[in-house]
Amino acid sequence: MQIISEYLNKLEQIVGSKNIFTDEETRRNYGHDETEDYNFPPQVVVKPATVEEVSSIMKLANKHQIPVTPIGARTGLSGGALSIHRGIGLSMERFNKILTIDEQNLQVLVEPGVITQVLREAVAEKGLFYPVDPSSMGSCWIGGNIAENSGGARAVKYGVTKDYVLNLEVVLPNGEIIWTGANTLKNSTGYNLTQLMVGSEGTLGVITKIVLKLIPKVSHNVLMLVPFYKSEQACEAVSAIFRAGIVPSALEFMERDAIDWTMKYVDGVSVPIKETIEAHLLIEVDGNYPEVLFQEAEKVAEVLEKFEIDEVLFADSEEQKNALWKLRRAVGEAVKSNSVYKEEDTVVPRYELPTLLKGVKEAGKKYGFHTICYGHAGDGNLHINIVKGNMTDENWKTEVPKGIVEIFELTVKLKGTLSGEHGIGYVQKDYMSIAFTQMELDLMKGIKKVFDPNHIMNPGKILNM
Amino acid sequence: MQIISEYLNKLEQIVGSKNIFTDEETRRNYGHDETEDYNFPPQVVVKPATVEEVSSIMKLANKHQIPVTPIGARTGLSGGALSIHRGIGLSMERFNKILTIDEQNLQVLVEPGVITQVLREAVAEKGLFYPVDPSSMGSCWIGGNIAENSGGARAVKYGVTKDYVLNLEVVLPNGEIIWTGANTLKNSTGYNLTQLMVGSEGTLGVITKIVLKLIPKVSHNVLMLVPFYKSEQACEAVSAIFRAGIVPSALEFMERDAIDWTMKYVDGVSVPIKETIEAHLLIEVDGNYPEVLFQEAEKVAEVLEKFEIDEVLFADSEEQKNALWKLRRAVGEAVKSNSVYKEEDTVVPRYELPTLLKGVKEAGKKYGFHTICYGHAGDGNLHINIVKGNMTDENWKTEVPKGIVEIFELTVKLKGTLSGEHGIGYVQKDYMSIAFTQMELDLMKGIKKVFDPNHIMNPGKILNM
Repeated sequence: MQIISEYLNKLEQIVGSKNIFTDEETRRNYGHDETEDYNFPPQVVVKPATVEEVSSIMKLANKHQIPVTPIGARTGLSGGALSIHRGIGLSMERFNKILTIDEQNLQVLVEPGVITQVLREAVAEKGLFYPVDPSSMGSCWIGGNIAENSGGARAVKYGVTKDYVLNLEVVLPNGEIIWTGANTLKNSTGYNLTQLMVGSEGTLGVITKIVLKLIPKVSHNVLMLVPFYKSEQACEAVSAIFRAGIVPSALEFMERDAIDWTMKYVDGVSVPIKETIEAHLLIEVDGNYPEVLFQEAEKVAEVLEKFEIDEVLFADSEEQKNALWKLRRAVGEAVKSNSVYKEEDTVVPRYELPTLLKGVKEAGKKYGFHTICYGHAGDGNLHINIVKGNMTDENWKTEVPKGIVEIFELTVKLKGTLSGEHGIGYVQKDYMSIAFTQMELDLMKGIKKVFDPNHIMNPGKILNM
Repeated sequence: MQIISEYLNKLEQIVGSKNIFTDEETRRNYGHDETEDYNFPPQVVVKPATVEEVSSIMKLANKHQIPVTPIGARTGLSGGALSIHRGIGLSMERFNKILTIDEQNLQVLVEPGVITQVLREAVAEKGLFYPVDPSSMGSCWIGGNIAENSGGARAVKYGVTKDYVLNLEVVLPNGEIIWTGANTLKNSTGYNLTQLMVGSEGTLGVITKIVLKLIPKVSHNVLMLVPFYKSEQACEAVSAIFRAGIVPSALEFMERDAIDWTMKYVDGVSVPIKETIEAHLLIEVDGNYPEVLFQEAEKVAEVLEKFEIDEVLFADSEEQKNALWKLRRAVGEAVKSNSVYKEEDTVVPRYELPTLLKGVKEAGKKYGFHTICYGHAGDGNLHINIVKGNMTDENWKTEVPKGIVEIFELTVKLKGTLSGEHGIGYVQKDYMSIAFTQMELDLMKGIKKVFDPNHIMNPGKILNM
């Protein structure tokens, strides 16, 4: 597929010459995200600023069957923003405004190119709370969060991105502009197009405006780091905490290696760890009444007494809390900085975590790879980093995929699935038949065709079609 | 469309002769729900007991293009269970088992024909909480709740049905059996078929098994009934409570008439009300720490001081709480017992409630009808009962629909929509073009065709096609 100069002229008429790029450096710069070392540059990078411009671009692309890949902050972990089929790379960076913070209705109207943390801070200034906090929240964008249905550490209590999206303005592949729903907390009016769009990874349309639900700000929290002598016991403790009636605001799991590597990678954060510790849980409870929080923290401590743990570290200042969170958030980058890697984003019902972890280690032993695991244990969401280390290229190519298949098969057997919060994108799509029957995949393909009959919208993602 | 005897024989082979009915009494009995006085009997009522039986029925119906209408508890308010196109009435009453309460993962696996309250009580015995409580929870079924995306009084804090559905077993119109997702709290694996099924009112498939998320039981609550001299101030107070940082577990609005009529209708519940009171708010806060609840109740009281209210009634015993809830839950039935009626289920962002209420009264004045309004004010969900009273049949037929159009147009202008929790079903589908553009409706019709190309699955609902 070539983009001939005629199309370039038309694109330039739509967005202006300053907002269209064909040089190699820019194209390569927009050809990657944080997924392994892939780079699929689009043929042209276009930076529209209005919904009308996006609409005109889509009409042009649809007419001439040019692939269009929406591009966000490029922090994705499944390759959703890669221009696999070249064509137009549609950067949403100029959609970077928070349009309205509605303090009366506890809602925000925002464009997709706003950094998630910027959004969180802007609403916090009004006493409001947008709880979804992916580890990359300092750099990822809210539009990408919606495309991938991002989660993060607070999902265990507050839910994931999908739980906050009320309504979306979307440009369809044919250029038509729609709103998917209404700005209401409840809605039983027709099929739920909003939730169909959330997590669809840019394959059904381009999100141009977002209405999110907010909640009142929560004022206090207690954070503790708990060292376990056995990794599997750390996983078991997760379910025990819920059964004691506690819903923590975060419940994170980190294997020994994860925390060790991260302390080397991040400056100024150090936790003394005994040699015999295998894993940690980072546990937060939050609320508006400190006296209640201490009671809840005590209940958590009571549950933990039943397991083989070392001394619990209670973060006793904002500084110490920030340091622990900095540590946790940096794990992904730290682990990946050390070696070529592949990351899986498995999710299971939380009680099945110990079984999943055991299966992951067995698959590693069988196929000769090392894994470092961490993630949002409260949600049953385990990030499995397979590090290449000293493995031969041959084994990396042939043995690792066999191990991944076994891990995914186990995940599905445990009533879980392939991805909890990273999406399927480019790198996991060949595994979709492990999670879904042909009929289920055919329904998804049918939906894709309804929205995008010419198959121009982020082709090559989620589904093989 | 005639169901010829050959099909009846085949249906009988599938479910057995005891579970197939063609007599008029049974057919009429399955021909209605709680929607006005409609009765659309199916030609045959079939009562399968297994997913395989449902699959065989759907294969037969699909082959011969026989309409199939899934029938639940027949408590619906939009006519979703009416056999408009006759054919097979598929009663799900034998799917009445709670299969597994999973205390480790806080989930329940349940069949669609279980009464919602029975489900709530069964999980409560294990210390777990399924918070969704439609007013009809003593008689409605969980399957119908999913079909209509039901809400209820606790949605304001805990969300609606959709927020608890993790995974569904569904028989498609072609008879194939699918699962829509995984039993996990997070899921970024393909398009969200689960949320597409929730609220689809039986038009995309037959739900045969349901996996719901549960949460730990909440032990305490405080309930208060607040009389307002002005209806609009009651609506204004709703938004003010949230802005004070309180998320009540229920925030219900009842106009004067609603409470008066209900006291006459329900035995043993009486509240002294001054002549000059126009409306009430019923406000509940809940949690596990009584001392915190009293602080929250006080904060609510502080907010209320700014409005013209009479003395607040605090329910000081379980008995009194039950009486107040009995009163609130009976409002719908009480109002409807008095006259021929039409009920609308409008929903807007909650701060817009006073404007909506004002618009409803103006429309009533303009077109000569009386309305009684009540509902889940915390969600912006206002049930508008238009009572016929002494109106002529002529005006009822010609003037009322004009008023409804104006009310819906106002709702949409306020960024709200047609239905918050009752669904579109049969009675609201002609108004869909007020809420959606042609393109948006075309997407929904396209989705319908992907699932149901022969258009046999609950035809005549949601969409005109």
